[in-house]
Amino acid sequence: MFKNLIANSKNLSYKMSQEATTLLIPGPVRLSPHVQSALSIQSLSHTSPEFVTIYQRVLQNTRRLFKADVKKGLPIVLAGSGTLGFDLVGANLVSPKDEIYVISTGFFSDEFAECLNGYGANITTSRGPVGDIPDLNLIKKTLQENKFKLVVMTQVDTSTGVLNDVESICKLVRDVSPDSLIVVDGVCSIGCETLEFDKWGVDFCLTASQKAIGAPPGLSIAMISERALETALDNKASVKPFFSSLIKWSPILKGFEEGRASYFATPPVQLINSLDVALDEILEQDGGLDKRVQTHEEKSNWFKSKITNELGLELVSQYPQNDVSAHGLTAIYVNNPPQVISSMKSKGFVIAGGLYKGIASKYIRIGHMGYSVCNSDAEDIVKCYAALKSTLQE
Amino acid sequence: MFKNLIANSKNLSYKMSQEATTLLIPGPVRLSPHVQSALSIQSLSHTSPEFVTIYQRVLQNTRRLFKADVKKGLPIVLAGSGTLGFDLVGANLVSPKDEIYVISTGFFSDEFAECLNGYGANITTSRGPVGDIPDLNLIKKTLQENKFKLVVMTQVDTSTGVLNDVESICKLVRDVSPDSLIVVDGVCSIGCETLEFDKWGVDFCLTASQKAIGAPPGLSIAMISERALETALDNKASVKPFFSSLIKWSPILKGFEEGRASYFATPPVQLINSLDVALDEILEQDGGLDKRVQTHEEKSNWFKSKITNELGLELVSQYPQNDVSAHGLTAIYVNNPPQVISSMKSKGFVIAGGLYKGIASKYIRIGHMGYSVCNSDAEDIVKCYAALKSTLQE
Repeated sequence: MFKNLIANSKNLSYKMSQEATTLLIPGPVRLSPHVQSALSIQSLSHTSPEFVTIYQRVLQNTRRLFKADVKKGLPIVLAGSGTLGFDLVGANLVSPKDEIYVISTGFFSDEFAECLNGYGANITTSRGPVGDIPDLNLIKKTLQENKFKLVVMTQVDTSTGVLNDVESICKLVRDVSPDSLIVVDGVCSIGCETLEFDKWGVDFCLTASQKAIGAPPGLSIAMISERALETALDNKASVKPFFSSLIKWSPILKGFEEGRASYFATPPVQLINSLDVALDEILEQDGGLDKRVQTHEEKSNWFKSKITNELGLELVSQYPQNDVSAHGLTAIYVNNPPQVISSMKSKGFVIAGGLYKGIASKYIRIGHMGYSVCNSDAEDIVKCYAALKSTLQE
Repeated sequence: MFKNLIANSKNLSYKMSQEATTLLIPGPVRLSPHVQSALSIQSLSHTSPEFVTIYQRVLQNTRRLFKADVKKGLPIVLAGSGTLGFDLVGANLVSPKDEIYVISTGFFSDEFAECLNGYGANITTSRGPVGDIPDLNLIKKTLQENKFKLVVMTQVDTSTGVLNDVESICKLVRDVSPDSLIVVDGVCSIGCETLEFDKWGVDFCLTASQKAIGAPPGLSIAMISERALETALDNKASVKPFFSSLIKWSPILKGFEEGRASYFATPPVQLINSLDVALDEILEQDGGLDKRVQTHEEKSNWFKSKITNELGLELVSQYPQNDVSAHGLTAIYVNNPPQVISSMKSKGFVIAGGLYKGIASKYIRIGHMGYSVCNSDAEDIVKCYAALKSTLQE
């Protein structure tokens, strides 16, 4: 349980909320005490040696987070929501009439497609049944019959809890259409699922700070490959957004990564300081990133097994047969989701409702990412399960 | 003096920096203790009643900050840097071939022009001599001889410390070219200079959290008028960015302002909580916004008078004859700026170097915004002056 500290701005005093609540939505997630503390540093000059050291370490660790080459390509950490990552792709890698293939597994894949369509791209979409991933043979056939500039997929669609088979799709694209740039939305996967940027040949992977990375919301985080960066820097599109331009950001981010202060737009120093601590917790603590992914899988499997075997509920994502379920959240069909959510809140657990068209009113989503599952003495998900069991038996 | 709290992420402990430093650059600025504390709340669900209450108050107070109508138009508070505000204009109010008039007073006006040019606009620029504002007769003549969709100006150009005469230019535009939309960059002015959004007929004013508003960096803040919002919602541009789209954000922000949770992209809950406290300090404490502007003027006038009379230095912005100097920073020509900046740092004051082409290596910039001048017992600027005097006499 964690007591939310809410600012009472009317009298400028702060009080610990008397109501202890545990945040278990699929992002933002509960912060570790160190990540939370790191937020409230005094403002620093964005060009000071102190901040350069922090930002440099964050950019270097961002490469490690994605398992990307230590030299090639560019790590990106900017003020913005995860959604800004869609625009980083649209503004830098898309020109009008470009052919783009979107492999959709839910609401966020569709949002990404809508964003890229806004940059004038022609979108071809493949999707499986709700809760499943599209068939690899269909993807192969589509790749063989078309020439796509980008192939776009969502590793974990937060709306359905479906985990796409990014590794296999990457292999297909490299075999069948090696010139296509591979773009992965890793918003709900980076930090809790396996992603091998270099090994799998990913060209652009975007994520956000507030999910499995365990930092506060407000940072758009991404990694771009060397060949995709070349495409971005050679951007011939007639309309070029400014804040999302890698032509603008590339020298700035390279400068900071090499320890030189540089200026294009003021970075959010407190959020970046907090991310620095979160990345340290992921990469340096408790066995590092691989162990962290394994922990998420174990906790997720325990939770999903209880939900399906003991409570007899059905998940939105296929499970356990032909399992395509993500390990950072669980989407569960229930009767009367608003009542379940309300009852869980009265028991101290903040969970989320459904989000995907057609089924949004039929399910709940419970997040189990970051500190809530990685902290060895945290029992958030165990207690949440007990509360859910009790709620459903009421 | 304020001790910076730097996270030592290597051992995940935190230490108070032993070196007491006072941040006096023209943004980010030193935070008040309450604003700083408000940052380190635990993450909240972005659709929870607790967060809706905070975001609603922030959006309502954003209208008051700009002196905008309580019903018409739309207040905007998003994750992003101030620079994202340029794109909010470009992405929503500009189509290729639009004629745009930029009244430039420095680096940031030129950046704004470059951004809008990226959206395909034809830019006409007027600028005065370095450190001065363009002549009103020239502006009038240019408005009479052209038909502009937008007239763009920077109220305070942070690079030169020039305060533009926004009120007079607005009056000219309304008289000569009433169909032109008036766009003001208020990044270094909102919270420390007079801006009357409604009374002056401004259509779009953008700012950022980290300057005279006294909050941490990471929020793009803006106000759009009813007629400009209609233009934005009727955007016919063939290329439409996503994250900066007011077609996307308008229903979301309206929802939150009316107390309804809504979702497009995850808002940075901690930064918004901190802004909530900062806005309360501006609007509800110590006589409110008008008194705050007056305080900034008084402290600025005292500082500039000392700098010019006692130290005999020259400002970049015209002063005291034909005074066009901003009240939130002072740009001062000095011999050997790097040495002055370094010496000031050794005395505990972080100040900034020059930024405008042609003269960047010849001057320093000292910020005096927010808590450093508004806190009654803060003597940051007095102590800074003493340190500067001592530095120049070394």
